[in-house]
Amino acid sequence: MDNFNADKLIKLALEEDITSEDISTNAVMKEYKKGAVSLICKQDGVICGLEVFERVFKILDENTEVNLLAKDGEKVKKGQHIAELTGDIRVLLSGERTALNYLQRMSGIATYTSEVAALLKGSKTKLLDTRKTTPNMRIFEKYAVKCGGGNNHRYNLSDGVMLKDNHIGAAGGIKQAVAAAKAYCSFVHKIEVEVENLDMCREALEAGADIIMLDNMSVEDMKKAVKLINGRALTECSGNVTRENIKNIIDAGVDFVSSGALTHSAPILDLSLKNLHPVEAQ
Amino acid sequence: MDNFNADKLIKLALEEDITSEDISTNAVMKEYKKGAVSLICKQDGVICGLEVFERVFKILDENTEVNLLAKDGEKVKKGQHIAELTGDIRVLLSGERTALNYLQRMSGIATYTSEVAALLKGSKTKLLDTRKTTPNMRIFEKYAVKCGGGNNHRYNLSDGVMLKDNHIGAAGGIKQAVAAAKAYCSFVHKIEVEVENLDMCREALEAGADIIMLDNMSVEDMKKAVKLINGRALTECSGNVTRENIKNIIDAGVDFVSSGALTHSAPILDLSLKNLHPVEAQ
Amino acid sequence: MDNFNADKLIKLALEEDITSEDISTNAVMKEYKKGAVSLICKQDGVICGLEVFERVFKILDENTEVNLLAKDGEKVKKGQHIAELTGDIRVLLSGERTALNYLQRMSGIATYTSEVAALLKGSKTKLLDTRKTTPNMRIFEKYAVKCGGGNNHRYNLSDGVMLKDNHIGAAGGIKQAVAAAKAYCSFVHKIEVEVENLDMCREALEAGADIIMLDNMSVEDMKKAVKLINGRALTECSGNVTRENIKNIIDAGVDFVSSGALTHSAPILDLSLKNLHPVEAQ
Amino acid sequence: MDNFNADKLIKLALEEDITSEDISTNAVMKEYKKGAVSLICKQDGVICGLEVFERVFKILDENTEVNLLAKDGEKVKKGQHIAELTGDIRVLLSGERTALNYLQRMSGIATYTSEVAALLKGSKTKLLDTRKTTPNMRIFEKYAVKCGGGNNHRYNLSDGVMLKDNHIGAAGGIKQAVAAAKAYCSFVHKIEVEVENLDMCREALEAGADIIMLDNMSVEDMKKAVKLINGRALTECSGNVTRENIKNIIDAGVDFVSSGALTHSAPILDLSLKNLHPVEAQ
Amino acid sequence: MDNFNADKLIKLALEEDITSEDISTNAVMKEYKKGAVSLICKQDGVICGLEVFERVFKILDENTEVNLLAKDGEKVKKGQHIAELTGDIRVLLSGERTALNYLQRMSGIATYTSEVAALLKGSKTKLLDTRKTTPNMRIFEKYAVKCGGGNNHRYNLSDGVMLKDNHIGAAGGIKQAVAAAKAYCSFVHKIEVEVENLDMCREALEAGADIIMLDNMSVEDMKKAVKLINGRALTECSGNVTRENIKNIIDAGVDFVSSGALTHSAPILDLSLKNLHPVEAQ
Amino acid sequence: MDNFNADKLIKLALEEDITSEDISTNAVMKEYKKGAVSLICKQDGVICGLEVFERVFKILDENTEVNLLAKDGEKVKKGQHIAELTGDIRVLLSGERTALNYLQRMSGIATYTSEVAALLKGSKTKLLDTRKTTPNMRIFEKYAVKCGGGNNHRYNLSDGVMLKDNHIGAAGGIKQAVAAAKAYCSFVHKIEVEVENLDMCREALEAGADIIMLDNMSVEDMKKAVKLINGRALTECSGNVTRENIKNIIDAGVDFVSSGALTHSAPILDLSLKNLHPVEAQ
Repeated sequence: MDNFNADKLIKLALEEDITSEDISTNAVMKEYKKGAVSLICKQDGVICGLEVFERVFKILDENTEVNLLAKDGEKVKKGQHIAELTGDIRVLLSGERTALNYLQRMSGIATYTSEVAALLKGSKTKLLDTRKTTPNMRIFEKYAVKCGGGNNHRYNLSDGVMLKDNHIGAAGGIKQAVAAAKAYCSFVHKIEVEVENLDMCREALEAGADIIMLDNMSVEDMKKAVKLINGRALTECSGNVTRENIKNIIDAGVDFVSSGALTHSAPILDLSLKNLHPVEAQ
Repeated sequence: MDNFNADKLIKLALEEDITSEDISTNAVMKEYKKGAVSLICKQDGVICGLEVFERVFKILDENTEVNLLAKDGEKVKKGQHIAELTGDIRVLLSGERTALNYLQRMSGIATYTSEVAALLKGSKTKLLDTRKTTPNMRIFEKYAVKCGGGNNHRYNLSDGVMLKDNHIGAAGGIKQAVAAAKAYCSFVHKIEVEVENLDMCREALEAGADIIMLDNMSVEDMKKAVKLINGRALTECSGNVTRENIKNIIDAGVDFVSSGALTHSAPILDLSLKNLHPVEAQ
Repeated sequence: MDNFNADKLIKLALEEDITSEDISTNAVMKEYKKGAVSLICKQDGVICGLEVFERVFKILDENTEVNLLAKDGEKVKKGQHIAELTGDIRVLLSGERTALNYLQRMSGIATYTSEVAALLKGSKTKLLDTRKTTPNMRIFEKYAVKCGGGNNHRYNLSDGVMLKDNHIGAAGGIKQAVAAAKAYCSFVHKIEVEVENLDMCREALEAGADIIMLDNMSVEDMKKAVKLINGRALTECSGNVTRENIKNIIDAGVDFVSSGALTHSAPILDLSLKNLHPVEAQ
Repeated sequence: MDNFNADKLIKLALEEDITSEDISTNAVMKEYKKGAVSLICKQDGVICGLEVFERVFKILDENTEVNLLAKDGEKVKKGQHIAELTGDIRVLLSGERTALNYLQRMSGIATYTSEVAALLKGSKTKLLDTRKTTPNMRIFEKYAVKCGGGNNHRYNLSDGVMLKDNHIGAAGGIKQAVAAAKAYCSFVHKIEVEVENLDMCREALEAGADIIMLDNMSVEDMKKAVKLINGRALTECSGNVTRENIKNIIDAGVDFVSSGALTHSAPILDLSLKNLHPVEAQ
Repeated sequence: MDNFNADKLIKLALEEDITSEDISTNAVMKEYKKGAVSLICKQDGVICGLEVFERVFKILDENTEVNLLAKDGEKVKKGQHIAELTGDIRVLLSGERTALNYLQRMSGIATYTSEVAALLKGSKTKLLDTRKTTPNMRIFEKYAVKCGGGNNHRYNLSDGVMLKDNHIGAAGGIKQAVAAAKAYCSFVHKIEVEVENLDMCREALEAGADIIMLDNMSVEDMKKAVKLINGRALTECSGNVTRENIKNIIDAGVDFVSSGALTHSAPILDLSLKNLHPVEAQ
Repeated sequence: MDNFNADKLIKLALEEDITSEDISTNAVMKEYKKGAVSLICKQDGVICGLEVFERVFKILDENTEVNLLAKDGEKVKKGQHIAELTGDIRVLLSGERTALNYLQRMSGIATYTSEVAALLKGSKTKLLDTRKTTPNMRIFEKYAVKCGGGNNHRYNLSDGVMLKDNHIGAAGGIKQAVAAAKAYCSFVHKIEVEVENLDMCREALEAGADIIMLDNMSVEDMKKAVKLINGRALTECSGNVTRENIKNIIDAGVDFVSSGALTHSAPILDLSLKNLHPVEAQ
């Protein structure tokens, strides 16, 4: 993601956590005092969000130094030192929670994604996210999916075409809907059509869909659909995909499987700041 | 939460999902067409976020009508109709995902909270949330905790005093830290001190702490601390509290137990918009 | 475009024109007085931006009534009445310039686009815009291109892939660049490669480019490229295309021709508010 | 213009062009790589907007170095090197279009203005812009007019008084309108009255107007008006003034001639970034 | 002032007073209940800011009804009913303080201004405000000065020219400074020069200044300056003017006297909301 | 206060004072010229707002150097040098008024507060501010109260509980209101109840109020209330407290006395920038 987009949201998050000031910290520390603290991992997983973590402290005080010992997308172990921070102790304390709230959530998504993606290893099927992200977190959550080894589906309603049953109904049929999208939308976007059975699948193919999403179909029907399509369109499988049931889907031979759970239900990865201590200013 | 605070964030979330326009919808529907759609629950749980859900559609088009059939905090059943929406079909389609992203997450937190709170029933111990919320979602997530039967800890760094080890170290001891907080912070805030053992607990009590947080202490030690404190301060127990281990804590007899998991790791509650259909404009 | 996105920019434009208040108008009109005014076309052209025009007045006073007598994309004639406005005379005066600044520019682009598009009539080649738009006007200008009968290229750097010489150089070749884009970018985006000669064109085709942009190539070379590609990728021709030279390009047989001039150099369409007069409030 | 005002708009323009990230660039360049690129002029003209051009890259990455080889308002030649940029190649690529969109438009206006102003050389008449600017571009466009040798009329509705027919009608006559403006508006603003004939001109003069705008009057009538006014007020001539017809106006002897075309219909000046190449980091 | 400019600031002020929600009110009132309350004046004075007062409640809930019984600029008496409000009791309580903070400050300025202006009655000298306003309150405070019978000096640094000693020094003299301003600034702005003695006054006059500000000069010297100028420029007297010393200045015969105290040191006018009571919803 | 919160408001204040540019300064100074200027105190008082003063210039140009010779909260004397500024002369001139508007107001509040606080010296009663602050100035004004030796009451409606007559009425009595607040609001907030007589005071005490506010009660009744409460709750006295009448209140023996006048009616402290002069760039 680009910094200036992330910064706008990080500043809002800091305003959320600091209305006027950090009263506890400012009560006991009236003056600048240099300190250092370590970012430690408390669970095995995939780390993600280190730049965002760093920006939180830099926005509070641009002189804060953050020495990263790992990179986004790397596997990390319980107990591993991920970063060392040096700066005004008040800033280290005031930024801690907001920085960790981003980092833990992004690492949680990257970790969960990497686990699901591992289940697809060896198959031709790739893992996709969805638009089921937390409001005002999409730029961070979609990035985390990529760090975890997943792939991004469309970013939002403006950069990808997805024709669902209601669009098809409004247009008067799949053929008409695809034609309308080709006429209206930029030619740089592929046209995706959501189908529920083999007849719709055939129609979508004939209409010139670039991607066909097989929605809540049985593995048997998906196999037939993949055979029918035969490489003339990309195939995506969707519908409450989780870590638990994804194995079955591999057999269907679809190109992509999308899972909202990656972003809406991944638990966080536990991380914490430890051993804050004063350091001599040089 | 107050509308004008929520609206600012909801608008940002809509900008996140719609950069220029909903190209799929606008491709197939060039003109206003009135339609209706139902909000259906797909899992048992506690519903939360209905006003936010409604605001999403109202911000897109103030003429959208949302008829709510349930209220925030109510238990809902799989299959239950939660609301009926009527308005421009394009608006119903374009707002669907953002509205559900809020509603599903808030209902997920309310549901998870109600389950954890149920485990505390019969005891004197009350359930608290933390500041481990998703960035830019705190106003929604803290509200959801309350709807689920939990209680709110401080909202942010500016409206509550919490003196942790680093504050105590900087001040030169518990006594000094509490004195500094009493001198600096508004007298309307209670002073909370985090302690790790009985000695610190005794010191905090003598220093005049209003709330003593027993951090990662054994159940046995917590019992001793509660006895020592003997009602002269409120007690809070903290440290990776989850649905699984909360039962043990009851015996300690603390006033409050706080759990970050309520907001950082609750899975969503599944809800969806179903049966979109045109209706005759009158 | 969606209203809430446009509104944000329209409000900024009003702040630009009204720092504190419209001092001339407020000096002579201290009280509400109902009035009406007509929007008249002063040149033949294609009208575009009527909703934006209306929003300017509605933002100043939601009670302003705007009765539109034409629709975006329609051809209009010199002297034609385009709309009738009724409301507080002060609002009609204060909003006039901002409303016309949007409408004249958008109509100018629609008019110019329709003239260029007319030159392509009968050929297979379609007209495209570019990202050479006026800053903070893209949502309006891309819409105007569509109203004028043109098509939109990608909206911005995030919703379309375009691999130019520098990207190709950085990746180490066309093949590597296309592979990198397929691995990194969402699969919903087509991959476009910019080529300068037939060799590069062949490479791009073999690499699996979805769109090949023939940049500043001669008509002869473009013909050869189109023949070589033979429908296996879409073709776009680019490079200082204007009303004057577009005729030559048709012969090349490319699918699309893109022109920055549509948005960066179209003159405005002259429109004005005429015959402001008081009306009796009922 | 002042930086902090410009920055707000430049950031918005960058958000317009980069919703999440520059996917093409980030796909092929995963790491920082230092590069350099030249800004070259492709047409003769007057350069304008170099600071804005520089800010675009600085906002993306404050470490970008921009070495300017020309100054705003200077005449530049086709092929001339205008600036050398050094920095992260990804930043040079991602900022290119937004930076050029500002620079080309501002230079186009400065160039067009300098051409029109040249036609007035030797006469006492000075060239003025209007409020017919592109929305959210006024601060840049008015600056460009000045760089091109033109003069600025009022900035917006709040900083200058202009009494048109509707204001005069509402006040009950020119005399009353001028009196109302003198009573209501700050005394630091001159009062300008728009007149359509010699009678109105006489009235305005008697009412104490500081500036009289001769609107759509014949050259003969303008001469009479100038004689009548005889230096007791400043005179401005207005009404579809363009490069083509401005010569005739000189003879009228007015102090100022205003032209909306300077900002609403100037074509861009063609500029481009050329020869991007990696450089060794020192 | 125009509503959309005021609204932006009022919303910020509400965010300042309500971070998440009005916890006291929401604790005791869970449901909508219709109520009414009266706005009462507790001191004699001049009322000002009633529209702003109303907007606060409308922004919280557009259904709030505000029945105004007085108009901005009117003299009001202790005990007088100024307005009756009806709406959701929670909104009446949550908006009270912010609404009164605006109204009391604006009315305080209007009252103080009217008192000072009264001292000038019968003389030719008019009362002016300055730019010594409270940050982010200028639009409200300058309006209040006008309601109190004062006049506005320039609004800000962009809409008026004031050449002080430092400008004169930088330009190399009064003559050069005035010439530079005439060449650089829009001709719609009058040129004001600040002078400290009669020599400078003479120079300013010769340089063509439109307004001459007599800064901290004795009444005797001001009289000489006014005589010297003899109507060829407007005169302004400045320098710690207050209610106490303004009488002396009248004799000097200047056109304007400016006073920072009007906005920076006026005490508030005491107003309050009284007799909140439930009303039957119809 | 925290910088990022203050910066947002300071930028808005600069936009208020500079719509496009500082036309007077830019007219006479076309190029960068290094200069220095002194901040001088013109009245005895307590200085406050030096960091805010500094930020104004840093936001305009981060290279401005501000050498502070005093600290917030210090007593300063007429004629004392408070700071030396060095930087681009244009920035020193353009930022002067906004910087002083903040500094003078904040110092005025600190000065007034210190005078009132001095009257309480020797007693047990402490001085409190209220929410009667200037809109969008609270973060600055509450800080100034603290610098002047006062204490802060709640920051806003979200971080403190205050149950007034209307809340009590809505709840059905003091007991019910306190119970509702304890159930609804975070346990970190103390519960304050406003009472008008001894009966209400007794009720509040029994209901478990943490703070009892004695509203507009006679000194005699306050004495009785303090005796009745006997340390079981904190006591606050309120009601038009000013410098003039605060002496009487000491006898009552309340813990706190709150005064809206501290923020709504303190006159400014006079400060100015003096002796601007060019300095040699090194």
